[in-house]
Amino acid sequence: MAVLEKNELVLNAAGRMVPESVNGGLQTPFMGAGKYRPQGRKASPPVRTAADYPENGDKRVADLETALRKCGLRDGMVISSHHHLRDGDRVALMALEAAARIGVRNLMWFPSASFPSQADAIKLMESGVIDHIEGSMNGPLGDYCTQGKMRGMGVLRSHGGRWQAIQDGEVHIDIAVIAAPTADPFGNCDGSHGKSACGSLGFALADSTYADHVIAVTDNLVPFPCIPWQIQGNNVDYVVEVESIGDPTKIVSGTTQITRSPDRLRIAEFVAQFLRDAGIMCNGFSFQAGAGGIALAFVGYLKQMMKDAGVKARFVRGGSTKYLVELLEEGLTDYILDGQTFDLDGVRSLANNVCHVATSPFTSYNYHGKGNFASMVDAVVLGATEVDTNFNANVVTHSDGRLLHGIGGWQNCLAAGCTILAVPSFRDRIPVIVDQVTTLCGPGELIDVIVTERGIAINPRRQDLIDAVKGSKLPIRPLPDIKGEVERICGGKPQRPRAGERPVAVVKWVDGTVLDTVWQVP
Amino acid sequence: MAVLEKNELVLNAAGRMVPESVNGGLQTPFMGAGKYRPQGRKASPPVRTAADYPENGDKRVADLETALRKCGLRDGMVISSHHHLRDGDRVALMALEAAARIGVRNLMWFPSASFPSQADAIKLMESGVIDHIEGSMNGPLGDYCTQGKMRGMGVLRSHGGRWQAIQDGEVHIDIAVIAAPTADPFGNCDGSHGKSACGSLGFALADSTYADHVIAVTDNLVPFPCIPWQIQGNNVDYVVEVESIGDPTKIVSGTTQITRSPDRLRIAEFVAQFLRDAGIMCNGFSFQAGAGGIALAFVGYLKQMMKDAGVKARFVRGGSTKYLVELLEEGLTDYILDGQTFDLDGVRSLANNVCHVATSPFTSYNYHGKGNFASMVDAVVLGATEVDTNFNANVVTHSDGRLLHGIGGWQNCLAAGCTILAVPSFRDRIPVIVDQVTTLCGPGELIDVIVTERGIAINPRRQDLIDAVKGSKLPIRPLPDIKGEVERICGGKPQRPRAGERPVAVVKWVDGTVLDTVWQVP
Repeated sequence: MAVLEKNELVLNAAGRMVPESVNGGLQTPFMGAGKYRPQGRKASPPVRTAADYPENGDKRVADLETALRKCGLRDGMVISSHHHLRDGDRVALMALEAAARIGVRNLMWFPSASFPSQADAIKLMESGVIDHIEGSMNGPLGDYCTQGKMRGMGVLRSHGGRWQAIQDGEVHIDIAVIAAPTADPFGNCDGSHGKSACGSLGFALADSTYADHVIAVTDNLVPFPCIPWQIQGNNVDYVVEVESIGDPTKIVSGTTQITRSPDRLRIAEFVAQFLRDAGIMCNGFSFQAGAGGIALAFVGYLKQMMKDAGVKARFVRGGSTKYLVELLEEGLTDYILDGQTFDLDGVRSLANNVCHVATSPFTSYNYHGKGNFASMVDAVVLGATEVDTNFNANVVTHSDGRLLHGIGGWQNCLAAGCTILAVPSFRDRIPVIVDQVTTLCGPGELIDVIVTERGIAINPRRQDLIDAVKGSKLPIRPLPDIKGEVERICGGKPQRPRAGERPVAVVKWVDGTVLDTVWQVP
Repeated sequence: MAVLEKNELVLNAAGRMVPESVNGGLQTPFMGAGKYRPQGRKASPPVRTAADYPENGDKRVADLETALRKCGLRDGMVISSHHHLRDGDRVALMALEAAARIGVRNLMWFPSASFPSQADAIKLMESGVIDHIEGSMNGPLGDYCTQGKMRGMGVLRSHGGRWQAIQDGEVHIDIAVIAAPTADPFGNCDGSHGKSACGSLGFALADSTYADHVIAVTDNLVPFPCIPWQIQGNNVDYVVEVESIGDPTKIVSGTTQITRSPDRLRIAEFVAQFLRDAGIMCNGFSFQAGAGGIALAFVGYLKQMMKDAGVKARFVRGGSTKYLVELLEEGLTDYILDGQTFDLDGVRSLANNVCHVATSPFTSYNYHGKGNFASMVDAVVLGATEVDTNFNANVVTHSDGRLLHGIGGWQNCLAAGCTILAVPSFRDRIPVIVDQVTTLCGPGELIDVIVTERGIAINPRRQDLIDAVKGSKLPIRPLPDIKGEVERICGGKPQRPRAGERPVAVVKWVDGTVLDTVWQVP
């Protein structure tokens, strides 16, 4: 990999300039939603033999360094990790630092997401241990990338896109390192018990299934069998016991706070009213809401409306939080289908309630499967950093061009029956509705409704939704109208970042094609 | 495939003549337990795209014929089925007969096991729709095979060997047909609910994961999501609703009856006493027992001994029955790890008790994995049709050479810490202990103890076990001693079948090598 190749740029179907090649691999430019047809067969890990593994099932080794050596760690390998411990995770850095001690270089780190507490990975990039990161880069690591300091190019994928890339053989994981809140010596792992419990371990499932070598790291070893085993020991090579896999106070993240901002509460209420008035909120319906402040408030409003109307959902999807758990426990939904677990109520519920079910990016999001759950959800409520008048949206960069957020399941969720972006119309006096998004993450054709505190804009493509809310008291307005009002308040359009000339990362679409480029901030 | 090739025979490491090639595929002769090293990577199904599946997740089609056509059914394809509905299954024949109506020929039927109620498959072999069967053939189908009437050669595999063969790409499944006691329109399937509930669906897991096309057939359709989903809808192409997938009275098989034979009860008690006196029955131990009459009686005796001694198991494995469920419910084991579910108590327990856990041949038996559960079980109690003085055993043919039974998990279980064959010393006045087994299914080096009503023989290789029971009151005797006594009772050794010259089936070892040949009965 080493230094950035000189990239030829091509124009893709979304009108964006994207590199033809990324980190040495030829790319397919975005061809339009649903247009690209994959070829070939799924990636396949090596056939192993039980003769090479201990008969008594005890795969423990002394430490991560030993495990990495036994996995044959060498220069240029791909090491993956998962982010279920979020900003509290200690294991990914522990593994990368052990690799540094072994003396290898030019690794590709392939986290399902990286967090501010992992900023020390910058040191490992500077010393040449890590060549580059493919995966969400939240905060300082994304910033480092947009400053053009990362040797290789960043590759941003949705949760489903990460599964697709692994499954399709686009990314070959040499060694997967799995932080396990509970594990047995055979390598069965569970996330919903133990002092570092984080809930579902679904993001690590692709890694455990497709990687050549798998290491489970735990601070809560139990005798075989570890029940439930979301990660199957039959895919695990080595088990490492450590004092602590993470900081419990940061594993359960602070994001599960309902917003107190009157504007944002107003947005949340509009969203709930929209679902009600458009007739989406009906018996047996389903919705997905994340763990942001607006989404949480939305669940609160919707819950009351469901109660008032005597409506019960068939399933709700999340990022589970206490607000979704309350719906389940109060009989307002049959099931929670849980992608990741955000707070202690979520963890407790997942551990104890059979109707709170762990999912994975395979079940929920993988576009290169025989369908997935995302398109079966009636309505999804998402955020965005920017939206434009064609309903295109950005979720990774700010208007100054800096990469500060991951995609998460955001792109995958756009497949829902009704995709709602719930966004304040401006932030820090910078308008959120723009002429053209800085980075395109979601094509406007898939985004149906934009809800701001100043009104609700429905995508003209969705005449059915426009008709459905006709006669309601909702403040339905054309998007340009809201945009104009906000520009008057903010004193104009946001300043466009100076055009960067050097691509530092790409945004993949759910099918592995390249949707857009993140440019170095000059 | 068509007619049998002229097979060259070679001598394998077990001293058995086996064909070099089976149904056109070159074979590796058995090299000794643990000696063969697999190469290469796992099989990989085609990459699909969600664009080809209904957005609303509804994969239902009118009937099996439509589903098979949509899967591109054509001559020579491999159709797989599972046997969790046992002798009550209607779905496998339904699919094969639909294929016959479509007019295809020379199919390979790849059931995880076939049963007497599926004897109509003989008609399909005679009409050329089915070329041959690879899989356990219980009763009439096995008999048909040993009569030399099947065009292709039978291939007998253990449950783990079947997973290995699929996983390693030795058998490529074109279309998997899954009988689902409960399913949703997306194809998620569960076996433990519905009028045709059968418990775990673990045997269908490899099929659903690796087949090119997967059809779920159900008589209990529920709205999405079907919870739990042991078979993931993301692997399923089509869902077919039928009136009935099977005969409930035969799904829960009649085998779960404790033996009433005094001799067999005596064997069962000896086995339990052996586990106790050898010190295997201790806190945290584990055992596996099948659903045969002796095995069930053994569980009863052991249970009492565990109570008397205040001993609790960590886990028990089965074929689950009410006898194992009682252990769980009375607190005598932490977990049941369930391979298949044999009676209504088992089904109820699996559906409701989180400590009763469905397993699969991948977790439990696959030899080409990163270990499996079988070698972690302290003691296993199995049957056999014949054993010889070298502790070799047969489980598929009778002494007359007829193939009447499948291997099941039997070969895989030989990896346990202590492998016990619990067998009557003779059946129908035919001695069970012979000079040389008619068909070799388990190498003697892996079989530790043979328990008959006339005494217990310990394999001389297991000096540790011989030492452990020294001083006990158990009737420990050399195997030749017991053999001699039985021959005196029965009036001599069993008649050897006339040597057949034509191989009609092969017995695979857990690593895919050929362990022995089943010969046409002249």
